[in-house]
Amino acid sequence: MSAVSERAYLDHAATTALRPAALVAYVEAAGVLGNPAAQHSSGRRARGVLDDALEHMGELLGVPTSWLLLTSGGTEADNLAIRGAALAAQKRDPGRLAVAVAASDHPAVLESARALRPEGLEVREIPVGREGLVEQEALGAALSDGAVSLLSAALVNNETGAIQDLPALSRIAHEHGALVHTDAVQAAGHIALPRIGAGEESPDLMTLSGHKIGAPIGVGLLVAPPHIPLQPVLVGGGQQRAVRSGTLDAPHAAALAAALAAAIGEQEREAARLAALAAQLHAGIAHLDPRAVLTGEGAPRSPHIVHALFPGADQDSLLLLLDQEGIDASAGSACTAGVTQSSHVLAAMGVDEELARGALRFSLGWTSTAAQIDRVLAALPQALERARAVRGLRRRSP
Amino acid sequence: MSAVSERAYLDHAATTALRPAALVAYVEAAGVLGNPAAQHSSGRRARGVLDDALEHMGELLGVPTSWLLLTSGGTEADNLAIRGAALAAQKRDPGRLAVAVAASDHPAVLESARALRPEGLEVREIPVGREGLVEQEALGAALSDGAVSLLSAALVNNETGAIQDLPALSRIAHEHGALVHTDAVQAAGHIALPRIGAGEESPDLMTLSGHKIGAPIGVGLLVAPPHIPLQPVLVGGGQQRAVRSGTLDAPHAAALAAALAAAIGEQEREAARLAALAAQLHAGIAHLDPRAVLTGEGAPRSPHIVHALFPGADQDSLLLLLDQEGIDASAGSACTAGVTQSSHVLAAMGVDEELARGALRFSLGWTSTAAQIDRVLAALPQALERARAVRGLRRRSP
Repeated sequence: MSAVSERAYLDHAATTALRPAALVAYVEAAGVLGNPAAQHSSGRRARGVLDDALEHMGELLGVPTSWLLLTSGGTEADNLAIRGAALAAQKRDPGRLAVAVAASDHPAVLESARALRPEGLEVREIPVGREGLVEQEALGAALSDGAVSLLSAALVNNETGAIQDLPALSRIAHEHGALVHTDAVQAAGHIALPRIGAGEESPDLMTLSGHKIGAPIGVGLLVAPPHIPLQPVLVGGGQQRAVRSGTLDAPHAAALAAALAAAIGEQEREAARLAALAAQLHAGIAHLDPRAVLTGEGAPRSPHIVHALFPGADQDSLLLLLDQEGIDASAGSACTAGVTQSSHVLAAMGVDEELARGALRFSLGWTSTAAQIDRVLAALPQALERARAVRGLRRRSP
Repeated sequence: MSAVSERAYLDHAATTALRPAALVAYVEAAGVLGNPAAQHSSGRRARGVLDDALEHMGELLGVPTSWLLLTSGGTEADNLAIRGAALAAQKRDPGRLAVAVAASDHPAVLESARALRPEGLEVREIPVGREGLVEQEALGAALSDGAVSLLSAALVNNETGAIQDLPALSRIAHEHGALVHTDAVQAAGHIALPRIGAGEESPDLMTLSGHKIGAPIGVGLLVAPPHIPLQPVLVGGGQQRAVRSGTLDAPHAAALAAALAAAIGEQEREAARLAALAAQLHAGIAHLDPRAVLTGEGAPRSPHIVHALFPGADQDSLLLLLDQEGIDASAGSACTAGVTQSSHVLAAMGVDEELARGALRFSLGWTSTAAQIDRVLAALPQALERARAVRGLRRRSP
C-alpha cells in the first residue's frame, strides 16, 4: 500500500484502493477449493461461502438474496440491466420499443442502449440541465407515448458527482409504465443507496461495482428482482437463474460483501469527512484561481468528487504537471480507453468545448487525507500558470 | 490449502486449486493502485502490470499481445467468440447465416449458438461418434453450402476428456470459408495448445479459463487476432479495442499469466504424471467392476479425465456414497447449476439414457496424488454395491 501514501491519489472514481478486509475475505475464500455448483462436500463448502456473502449483501442492501446477480463488474451489470430488460420487455409487449437514458450517463449505459438500435429498438437520450440533472419535463414528454420500457439514470455522475433526483425520475417513469435502472457505481459508500423495488419512487434495478468501493476489479452486482424479466447477456451453464451464466465466483462475492459492508457501514462518517476535504479543495481552488468554474455548485453532489473548469488551460498539460508533483487526478473519466476525449457529460450540460478542455476531476476515497488536498492546492498555481502559458504559446504559433 | 489434502478432490475439471504463484501475483498486483486506462503515474504503473502479464501470456501462447482479450472467464470468452464472430460475419456477408457447433460441446458454446436463433441465425449441431469425436463427413456436408461463418469445437471435452482432431476440423472448416473457434478450457495444462491463426490446420479463436488452470475464478482469455471482426458482447468505455469494455483488470491478468506459465511450463511433466494416475484409476475400475464401461477408451483423451459408466448404479447415489468417504467426484459437469441432468454429451455419443445414469467423472489436477486414487479404488466397491442395491430396491417398489 506504499503507493497510496507516496502519491496524492485523487482518482478514486476511476478505481479506489483495495480494502484490507476485502483482500482478506478474498484470500480466505480462494482457499476453499470447490465449484459452488458441484454436489460434493467441497462444492457445498464453496457454495456456503457464496451464500454467506450474498446473504450479507442482501441485508446491507435491504433486498432478498435472490435479487442479487453477481457480474464481472459495473459494465456487465449495466449491459445486462439495459439490454436484458429492454429486450425482454419488447418480447412481451412489442409496443415497448424504446429505452431512455440520461444524456450524461456513463458510456456503459449509453453504449448498452445504443447497441440495441441495430436490433430495432429506439434510444431516447434525455437532456440534462446546466447542473447535470435530468430535465423532468423532457423526461415526461419522452415517455408520454408509452413506448419506453426502461429509463436508466446514474445516481451519481462519474465526472461531476451530480446526484440525480431518482425518486422524482422513478415516479415519472413508473407513471408511464417504464422500469427504472440506476447505475449507482459512484454512489455506493458516498451517499445513501436507494432501496430497490420499494414503490413508485424507487428504482427497479441497480448496478454496483466492486473496485469503486474497495473490492477487487472484476466483480459487480446487478440488483434485480426475479419478477422483472431479463434476457441474459452471457449464456451457458444456467447459473444465477439462467440470467447470468458462468462459474459462480465465491471469492469475489466474499470480497465484495466485505467491501460493501465497510463502504455502507462507514458511509455517513466518510461522507462527512470527504465533504470537509472537498470543501477545503473547493475553497482553495476558488481562492487561488478566481477564474475557475466549480462544476455543479448549485446541485446536490456526492462528497467524493470535485470537478472544476480552468479557463485557458489544457487538461492534458495540467494533468502532466500535477503528475510531476506526485498528484494523480483525471480529466473526467478513465473509461474511454486512455484517450482524453471531449466530455459528453459536459457537452450535455451545455459547457462550451473550449471551457471543457480545462476540466479536471479530483475524486476522493477512503485513503484520502487533508495533506493530499494541501499538496494539490500547493501545486495548482504553478501548474495553472504553466498550462496557460503553453496554451498561450500554442495559440500564437501558426 | 488444508481442504486439498484432507479430501480426495477429484473434480479439477469443475475448478482446480488456486496455484500459490497465481495468488502471490494477484495480491502483489492488487496492491498497485490505479486504473490502467488513467494517464497519471499510478495508472501507468497499473498499465505496466497489465502489459507485462499480457506480454508474458502472448509469449506462452505464441501470439502477439494484441491478440489477447481479457474476459471474466470461459463463458464470456465463448459468448464473445461465437456471438461476436457470427454477427460480425453476417454483417459483412448476409449469406453467412449459420454457425456450426459440435453436439458434445460445453453449454457455454451451445447456448451461445442457440441464442443467435431469435436473431435470425441458424445453428447446425454437428454429430459426434461413439468416442465423442466430431463426424468429419457430417461436418463437411453441414458446411458445404458456404452458409456457416464459424465452427466451434472444444479441444478437450469437459465430461469425457475426448480430444478433437482440431487440425482436421480446421482444414474442413477453412475449406468452406468458415472460421474456427475452440474452447480449450479443459485442454490448457493437460495437452499442448494449438497455435492460433497459424494456417489451415489451426483454429482462429481460442477460449481459456483461469480457474481451470490454477488462476482465480473470474478471469479468462479469448485469443482473437484483430483482423477477425467481432461484435462486442459487453459495450461501454471502449477498452480492449472496443471489443470488450470494462475496467482493465491488471491483478487478474497477472494471476492468469502466472497460472498459465505454470500450467504450460509443467504441462509435459504433469501430463505424464496424471496419465499414470489415470491409468491406475482406469485399471483399478476395470478390475473391481468388470461391468464398468470406460468412456472413450478408443479415442485420444486428455490425461486428467477418467470417465466411467457403472451399469445399474445411479450417479447421485454413487456421488453421495463417495462423498461420505471424503471423495469429491462429479456426474459429468458442474456447469448446469447444481442439478444433475442427463448428459447431452453422452446422449450425443449415443450412450443410452439408462447407462448414462451411472456415469461418473474423476478429474485430476496439479494437487492429485496416487494416495487419492487408492482411496477412490478402496471406496468404490462398497459404493457400487450399495448404489446398485438402492437402484434395485427402487425398481422393485411400485
